[in-house]
Amino acid sequence: MQNMDVLSGLRVDNNIIKTTSQYEFSFDVVTTNNIFDLNNTAILNVCKGKKLLIVISETIETLYGERIRNYFEGNYKPEMFKIIIINTTEANKNIENVLSVCKAGKEFGLDRTSLMVAIGGGILMDIVGFASSIFKRKLNYIRIPTTLVGHIDAGVGIKTGVNFSGSKNYIGAFHPPVNVINDIDFLKTLPVKEIVCGLSEIIKMGIIVDMELFELVESHYAVLIEGRYQGDILISNRVNNLAIVGMLKQLIINFYENDLERLVDFGHTFSPFIEEYTNYRVKHGIAVAMDMAISTEISYLLNKISKNERNRILNLILNIGVNIYDEKIYNTQLMYKSLINIVLHRGGDLNLVIPTEIGQATFIKSLDEVPCYLLQVVFENLKNYQLSGSVTDENSIGV
Amino acid sequence: MQNMDVLSGLRVDNNIIKTTSQYEFSFDVVTTNNIFDLNNTAILNVCKGKKLLIVISETIETLYGERIRNYFEGNYKPEMFKIIIINTTEANKNIENVLSVCKAGKEFGLDRTSLMVAIGGGILMDIVGFASSIFKRKLNYIRIPTTLVGHIDAGVGIKTGVNFSGSKNYIGAFHPPVNVINDIDFLKTLPVKEIVCGLSEIIKMGIIVDMELFELVESHYAVLIEGRYQGDILISNRVNNLAIVGMLKQLIINFYENDLERLVDFGHTFSPFIEEYTNYRVKHGIAVAMDMAISTEISYLLNKISKNERNRILNLILNIGVNIYDEKIYNTQLMYKSLINIVLHRGGDLNLVIPTEIGQATFIKSLDEVPCYLLQVVFENLKNYQLSGSVTDENSIGV
Ligand SMILES: NC(=O)c1ccc[n+]([C@@H]2O[C@H](COP(=O)([O-])OP(=O)(O)OC[C@H]3O[C@@H](n4cnc5c(N)ncnc54)[C@H](O)[C@@H]3O)[C@@H](O)[C@H]2O)c1
Ligand SMILES: NC(=O)c1ccc[n+]([C@@H]2O[C@H](COP(=O)([O-])OP(=O)(O)OC[C@H]3O[C@@H](n4cnc5c(N)ncnc54)[C@H](O)[C@@H]3O)[C@@H](O)[C@H]2O)c1
Repeated sequence: MQNMDVLSGLRVDNNIIKTTSQYEFSFDVVTTNNIFDLNNTAILNVCKGKKLLIVISETIETLYGERIRNYFEGNYKPEMFKIIIINTTEANKNIENVLSVCKAGKEFGLDRTSLMVAIGGGILMDIVGFASSIFKRKLNYIRIPTTLVGHIDAGVGIKTGVNFSGSKNYIGAFHPPVNVINDIDFLKTLPVKEIVCGLSEIIKMGIIVDMELFELVESHYAVLIEGRYQGDILISNRVNNLAIVGMLKQLIINFYENDLERLVDFGHTFSPFIEEYTNYRVKHGIAVAMDMAISTEISYLLNKISKNERNRILNLILNIGVNIYDEKIYNTQLMYKSLINIVLHRGGDLNLVIPTEIGQATFIKSLDEVPCYLLQVVFENLKNYQLSGSVTDENSIGV
Repeated sequence: MQNMDVLSGLRVDNNIIKTTSQYEFSFDVVTTNNIFDLNNTAILNVCKGKKLLIVISETIETLYGERIRNYFEGNYKPEMFKIIIINTTEANKNIENVLSVCKAGKEFGLDRTSLMVAIGGGILMDIVGFASSIFKRKLNYIRIPTTLVGHIDAGVGIKTGVNFSGSKNYIGAFHPPVNVINDIDFLKTLPVKEIVCGLSEIIKMGIIVDMELFELVESHYAVLIEGRYQGDILISNRVNNLAIVGMLKQLIINFYENDLERLVDFGHTFSPFIEEYTNYRVKHGIAVAMDMAISTEISYLLNKISKNERNRILNLILNIGVNIYDEKIYNTQLMYKSLINIVLHRGGDLNLVIPTEIGQATFIKSLDEVPCYLLQVVFENLKNYQLSGSVTDENSIGV
């Protein structure tokens, strides 16, 4: 054999054949409204002529089933689409559910040009995304998120997955959708606490990379929550678009999570403990908000953020209705122990994200910088602010 | 929002956010010998310092278990590797087996920097590859093939998968290994029929793209088979390296199988029928060889390949011990029906690969070019050659 043979990504050396290649993907996040209006083309633009397995949850069946059926019956030949309903609680976010979707796809006769269409919250999208990633080794799919978390977080990335053997999202795939179609109409039926969970992730993006986004939510949180996103549609869409673009800017440099230093992990250091310790009674979004309050107070005590900006962050978290202190959960010893575990998990580094100003954040690399007694002070301060209902220059315990 | 905002793959238009990105990968196919010699570094070069879940089959445990254990015990801390044995028949090439590998990995405490190591035939590698593709959404893995099919085919690509709901390899993932380590020593314990299966795939590569490879096998098939690849190591390695490079040249332009016109599908049009019809009694490699004989005779009858080259191809297939005619299987009507199904499956095209000379092939796009009566003649001719034991200018039924 010739000693060196370079050809499109293939290099043949004596006893080593080196292959280099790549997988390119692109997807659009499209904003529409009245998605199931018979004349709305958002779905048709992507699905036309393709066989569809449409997967929805029981809640979506109850609330939107008729509209969904009307839409597809009006626009599609009956043999070209099938709607199935799956169970979507965290308890059955599992591989069996994924396989049942695959089985339905197989029985319906999907081929490589077909699509799965996921209409639902993050759980449903994660299940369907995973199913389409393994179906014939890769099937295209579309996400139509129906929750706020779905719109600005679960719908946007390329991660899919389910719980396995007692651990959240332990198995799954990186599998980009071909399209994400967002319609905030869905949010009008969403429970307020789910809106708050989504807003928490939006505020996260605002704090770490986008002051404008933070300030928009700071000014409009009341109408966003009470109006369930329907009060001021322009503001609602602007908030979501900024959050999505902010998220994608972070993801695009790190879709496959090779880099473990991620700003989007803001709010995700203490929150796993909070969720597990309360047996997931505290929802993810709320735990993230609680974590952001802890991380922000740490930043303040370490002199990394001004008092004024710290105040604004904590007040916004309080204002959307999150308790920034909970005496049943905030056990300094246990929480500190969980940090030690995280350090082990993150390969020796803590990589705690803390804000330095609104729209800017940095990392605390080492656990040494967050001694146990600091956490103690953080909790005392948060307790004080929570009791006062807000944090002001007056009730703030200084550095 | 600004109307147009182009940044590294992110384009923000009014109500469309367009994301483009890519996943880059590279892997080496390394040839070594005495892979489990304590001082052999082929495995260590990739695994050093990483936690390993080593997965082997029962056969490999029996034949090589002790050597494998000695190697890792000699080179690795006991807490850094674990060997598990799984069942690897087609009947349990299934998702349960994949999940059991994931479970073992979880219990052993693999993290994102760890590796799975698959030591075995194609079945084992497909199971372990799939398991590592879903483990924490993506874990690196190494393939150490122990069969000839593994060396030159299953080990080389990026496909993984298992049988599902009665269909072969129906669910799986495209998941490139980080390394493939080939040692033909393994082949000395391989049953001859397995060698023949591998040779059949090698001859396929020779026929479609590499005359040199074809001629090497044509001259050396006897020593390759009888010597179980140990007779002339230089020839054995050269044959395999040519086959692997030939395969990779085809794969690299089409790793994700977006293009359905694939030369490597030579031998894969009639073979699925042969396998299914015989309930998989006829092994895949043998069915591929039978299919290649059919396709070559079709090419000859359509005047696309010379008599001489047709003769050489059919004779080599006969010489490695494959029956090119089997009256129990070659039912013209049924076989033709299976072609109609394939056309449906391939989206309206037949895309039958036929050789035009040794080292060159082309496609027959449409089923119209292969009428049922042509198949009838093909089978009569093949029967004739099979009975004579070889095809010569004399016993050849002309065009
Ligand atoms: N893949 C990712 O990148 C990613 C990102 C974030 C979260 N997630 C996952 O997403 C899940 C959380 O997503 P979620 O917050 O959407 O939860 P969810 O899917 O459980 O939905 C929340 C609740 O709202 C209901 N619901 C959904 N749409 C509704 C509507 N329009 N009106 C009324 N009720 C509606 C659901 O039935 C459910 O009870 C978690 O499992 C998490 O792991 C994944
Ligand atoms: N992923 C891919 O791209 C790809 C390509 C080709 C084939 N495959 C898959 O691979 C499988 C076929 O692979 P295979 O032919 O290696 O079959 P196999 O894995 O079943 O191995 C064949 C037999 O040889 C035994 N064996 C393995 N190594 C041995 C050794 N060194 N000595 C003695 N016996 C040994 C096995 O136990 C088995 O009985 C099929 O399931 C097929 O779908 C996958």
